Amino acid sequence: MLKYEKIAHDMHTFITNNQFKAGDKLPSVTALKEKYEVSKSTIIKALELLEHDGIIYQAQGSGIYVRNARNDNHINVFKTNGFSRSLSEHQLTSKVLKLEEITYIPQKIMQELNLSKGDSVYYLERLRYVDGNVLCIEYSYYNKEIVKYLNTEITEGSIFDYLEQNMQVKVGFSDIYFNADQLDSNEAKLLELEPNDPCLRYHQTFYTTTGIPFDASDIVFHYKNAHFYIPSKR
Amino acid sequence: MLKYEKIAHDMHTFITNNQFKAGDKLPSVTALKEKYEVSKSTIIKALELLEHDGIIYQAQGSGIYVRNARNDNHINVFKTNGFSRSLSEHQLTSKVLKLEEITYIPQKIMQELNLSKGDSVYYLERLRYVDGNVLCIEYSYYNKEIVKYLNTEITEGSIFDYLEQNMQVKVGFSDIYFNADQLDSNEAKLLELEPNDPCLRYHQTFYTTTGIPFDASDIVFHYKNAHFYIPSKR
Repeated sequence: MLKYEKIAHDMHTFITNNQFKAGDKLPSVTALKEKYEVSKSTIIKALELLEHDGIIYQAQGSGIYVRNARNDNHINVFKTNGFSRSLSEHQLTSKVLKLEEITYIPQKIMQELNLSKGDSVYYLERLRYVDGNVLCIEYSYYNKEIVKYLNTEITEGSIFDYLEQNMQVKVGFSDIYFNADQLDSNEAKLLELEPNDPCLRYHQTFYTTTGIPFDASDIVFHYKNAHFYIPSKR
Repeated sequence: MLKYEKIAHDMHTFITNNQFKAGDKLPSVTALKEKYEVSKSTIIKALELLEHDGIIYQAQGSGIYVRNARNDNHINVFKTNGFSRSLSEHQLTSKVLKLEEITYIPQKIMQELNLSKGDSVYYLERLRYVDGNVLCIEYSYYNKEIVKYLNTEITEGSIFDYLEQNMQVKVGFSDIYFNADQLDSNEAKLLELEPNDPCLRYHQTFYTTTGIPFDASDIVFHYKNAHFYIPSKR
């Protein structure tokens, strides 16, 4: 964790522990600079991170304020962190339905992951649970050039933690497309719902910090168990 | 428009007009600084804006690259701009179903808009269309302290444009909560769908740049006509 990330994390903990409410004023940049004994630019970077995450807002010429810091079971789709981090206060578990190395890859995925004929991917199907309730089905393709190895044990946990800690893969950003739709009968069975019940469909492509697409996933969310939050900005 | 916003806008147009593809490299900060004859910090702010909007990404020590710049009918929920701007290449129209000033306000809305007993709000129901197809139903409450005047003509167009140009209201940020759900019979009728068909439900609260909540809206999206995009970031 970099210095400004650590300060942002400390400030977030401070805001949570002291039960700050939306609109409460925080110390000035100068005061924070003195408190943490760092440069002004480090404080500014920490504040930008907190603003990006929807924790605070900065009103020009007026000060720094706490934003409506939602601290419940909503998935913050603003952050490319995987659910393991977005829902960190909850018990997240996974059930692996299928994991295989394949070379017969749908055309759409070939394009998205910039693959050539003969390249192979890991194909993974998982059910994911939050506190024991089914959250979603994930159908994922991982570019083997980047994700060189996966097994059932790894995919039962946080794949991103594994990639970052063991494979020097740096997760950078992602494109998310989503819409509401109806479940087909197979999806309904897996999500313990009825065919034609509503769902939220996600298509998400993850890139490394250097812009290489390495994970293309279709995710089907349980409409009662999945709630989403976006701190949006002008 | 500030100088860095103008540069970001120019660069975006340049990327679009020259049919740049994802992964294409852009000129360096130094080259851009010379091209636009501005300071390095102005270029950096322009690049941050483009990165925030999902147009480019910056790979440390390597350069600036074009991101998968989606240019179609997806709503970019990352930006607190209202649909009028997110869908600017499409014909967006509105049909006002109800507009009234009320003092009997749901408790949840009172809290969200920080209202006291006796305060009044504008309550607005609109149907919104993209290229003639129904996109959503909006149920909105506007804090009269901030939004001092509305009429049918204003609400048939972009309310945010009106607020910014005529009322010196600066739209700052918004909180969006959403989930998939089923339509009730009234909503189905308005959206030209069947009861129990899926929908995407949004609850969105808009704040001024100084953090005052002025608009709390429930939005029900047509599941076939509304598609969403989020450029997400680590």
